[in-house]
Order: sequence, then structure tokens, then C-alpha cells
Amino acid sequence: METNLNLNKHISGQFNQELEFVRNQVLTMGGLVEQQLEDAIRAVHERNAALAEQVIEGDRKVNTMEVAIDEECTRIIAKRQPAASDLRLLLAIIKTIADLERIGDTAERIAKIALASYSSQQATLLVSLESMARHVLKMMRDTLDAFARMDVDAALALHAEDVRVDREYESLFRELMTYMMEDPRSIPKVMEVVWAARALERIGDRCQNICEYIIYFVKGKDIRHISREQIKKNVLE
Amino acid sequence: METNLNLNKHISGQFNQELEFVRNQVLTMGGLVEQQLEDAIRAVHERNAALAEQVIEGDRKVNTMEVAIDEECTRIIAKRQPAASDLRLLLAIIKTIADLERIGDTAERIAKIALASYSSQQATLLVSLESMARHVLKMMRDTLDAFARMDVDAALALHAEDVRVDREYESLFRELMTYMMEDPRSIPKVMEVVWAARALERIGDRCQNICEYIIYFVKGKDIRHISREQIKKNVLE
Repeated sequence: METNLNLNKHISGQFNQELEFVRNQVLTMGGLVEQQLEDAIRAVHERNAALAEQVIEGDRKVNTMEVAIDEECTRIIAKRQPAASDLRLLLAIIKTIADLERIGDTAERIAKIALASYSSQQATLLVSLESMARHVLKMMRDTLDAFARMDVDAALALHAEDVRVDREYESLFRELMTYMMEDPRSIPKVMEVVWAARALERIGDRCQNICEYIIYFVKGKDIRHISREQIKKNVLE
Repeated sequence: METNLNLNKHISGQFNQELEFVRNQVLTMGGLVEQQLEDAIRAVHERNAALAEQVIEGDRKVNTMEVAIDEECTRIIAKRQPAASDLRLLLAIIKTIADLERIGDTAERIAKIALASYSSQQATLLVSLESMARHVLKMMRDTLDAFARMDVDAALALHAEDVRVDREYESLFRELMTYMMEDPRSIPKVMEVVWAARALERIGDRCQNICEYIIYFVKGKDIRHISREQIKKNVLE
């Protein structure tokens, strides 16, 4: 797979190293965001306020990484004046880290739920949320893995996976609405769970974005806003 | 102001024209998104299904423009290998159009509300939504205006304006929650309005992002994720 990345063809070994460095930085940032999301889910599950606070605090580090990687990419573009494939890699990275940063914000939002108290009855809602969160976490891991390998097939499969996250969200949302209708006093609390569910659904979209950047980098094709049939035709032809 | 853009210093008149062309494309796209948002608000106000359908259909054009401008910027970077300020302009444009595209999605979401029927009682909720929408629309217009002039002072003022949009959203959200608690059967309908309000609040965030790109382009400083005091110090020093 590594050869697909065209990282070996540069005459300048230094340039190679720079590209490899930012690619690794993205994976480090992705790993951090993944950890943030996992900790947030665990904080909700265990009603662990200390862990939740740690996630909220940790979001700063995610933000700092985004700015640093963005700057590094800009610096490399200005200095190395990269051609087609390398430029696509750097632009794909700039877009990917913006999505990762927003996934980090979601982790923070979920962690805040762990800080609120829920009655034992309402706690059942958190079980459904957690199940959705685990699904999204897996999707995120697979997306980062596809990014690490710049694996177009995996990216295409994950791009389709988002539909399943959307369905899970819709089902959870209906459950939450029913709950609110049956117990209107619970509305403010349940709305917190609604926001978290919505934020998780958005993580699915962001993973989908990252998959689009992977395809854009490897194939040089922008597949945003086109139908699945067109995507297959465009990418596989 | 025009001289601040450093558009006149290039030896290559052709390069100048290319930069001017994409800058104009962004303003055209911005104008289109603004029109979409305005039409969506009007469709809700007039319960005008035909206009709503037109907005929903029009979102495709916004998406197409984003992809075209993105490609054009990438092409210019690859061909012209721009240095500091021009590269910053092109990267700022790539990020700006991504935010504009998402504002376009919001217009579509609001238009869909016009297609649903509301009882005359529920219709009062739409009045509050409309008021918030007009505020956000003004913020968006001012943001595009600041972008056209690359006006850092205006961008800083607008960056602070987002707090007011957030407050308006919180007030509307409380109103909507009260409504749901008093009439639980209304929850599914009211939730539609909640999503629209939330989407409008997000437009405020996106305008804020665009203001950050303006400052990044003109000052060469990334002000994301830092406090207002630091922003003032950083930008004005």
C-alpha cells in the first residue's frame, strides 16, 4: 500500500520526511480524538465526573494540534511548491484535521452529559446512546485506519456505512421523542441526550468526509455531492 | 482597501486575473447562498411551498459551485506555486466555500419547514424563528461584505456578534422547550423548529469561521480557539 502514496519518488529526502511527519501528526491527532471520544463514552457509562472533566480539558490539546498541523501544511506548500499528488495529500490533510477537530468537540459535548445527573429511569436512554456511540467510535477507528493506509476500498465501504449510523440515530431519536411525550417534565434532560445523539450522527458525516478526502487524494476525484452509483462508477472506472 | 489585498503586485497579469476570478466566484457563491437563506425564510413566512421547493432544488447549484471553486484553487496553487499572502488567500477561500456550502444546507433545512403544516397556534413559534433568521441573515451579509473588502475590523466586530446570535438561540430554545412541555403532542412538530433554530445558530458559527479566515489572510495569524482578549492583542498589535 505504501507505494500508492507516492512518497518514495521525491528526489528530496527532506521533503519526504516532511510529508511523512505531517501524515503521522494527523494519525496522532486522530488517535487523540478517538481516545477523547472513547473516554467521553466511558465517562457517561460510569457516571465518572473526573474522567468527563479530563475530556473537556483535553479538547484544548486537540485544538492546538489542528492549528499546528494546518500551519505545517501551509508552510510545506509554500516552501516545496508540491505538484499534483503531494498537493492533494496536503489539502486532504488540511480538510481532515478540520473534521477531526469537530469530532473532538463532540466528545466534549458527550462528556458534559456525564456531569449531569439522570434518574435511574432516564438512565435507560443513556444505554441506547452508548450503543450508538460505540458504533460511531468503530466507524471512526476504521476511518483513521483507512486514512493511515490511504485505502480507497475501505473508504468506499465506510462511506456507505454512514447510512447505518443515520438509521440508528433516527431510531434513537424516535425513542427519545416518545419518552418526552410520555414524561414532559423530562424534556430538558432528554434534550441533552438528543443533542449528544445528533452530535454522534454528525461524527458519521465527518468520517464520510474524511473518506471523501482519501478518495480525492488517491484517485484525484472529488466525489462530494454525487450519488453512490456515480461514486462507484467514478472511482472504480 | 483594495491595495491591502496585494493583488496588484504580481508581475504576471494572468495570475492576477486568476486570483480575481476565484475571489469573484466566492462572492457569487456567497450571494447565491444568501439568496437561498432569504428565500427559505420567506417560504416559511408565506407558507410558500413552491418557493421552498425552489430552495431545496437550488442547493445543488451551491454544491456544484463549491466543488468548482475548490478545484480552481487547487489548480492555481499547483500551477502558480504562490508565496505567503497569495497562498493564504487561496487556502482561506477553500475553507470559506466549505462553510458557505454548509450554510446552504441550512437554507434547505429551513425551507423544508415551509412544506410542513403548522396549526395557527404553533405558527407563533415560527415568528420567533423568523426573527432569529433575519438576524443571522444580516450577519451573513455583513460577513460576505467583510470578505469582499478583506476588512479585518469588520471581521473582528462580526466575530464578537456571534455571542448575540447564541443568546437569541438560547432564548428561542427555552421558548420551544416550554411549548413542548405544555403541549407534548406538539413535540414532533416543535422539534422541526428546534432543528432549524439550531441550524441558524450554526450559521453564526460559520460566519465566525469566515471572519477568522479573513483575519488569517490579512494578518497571517490563525486566531481559532483563542480567547477574545488574545485575539485583540494578536490582531491589533
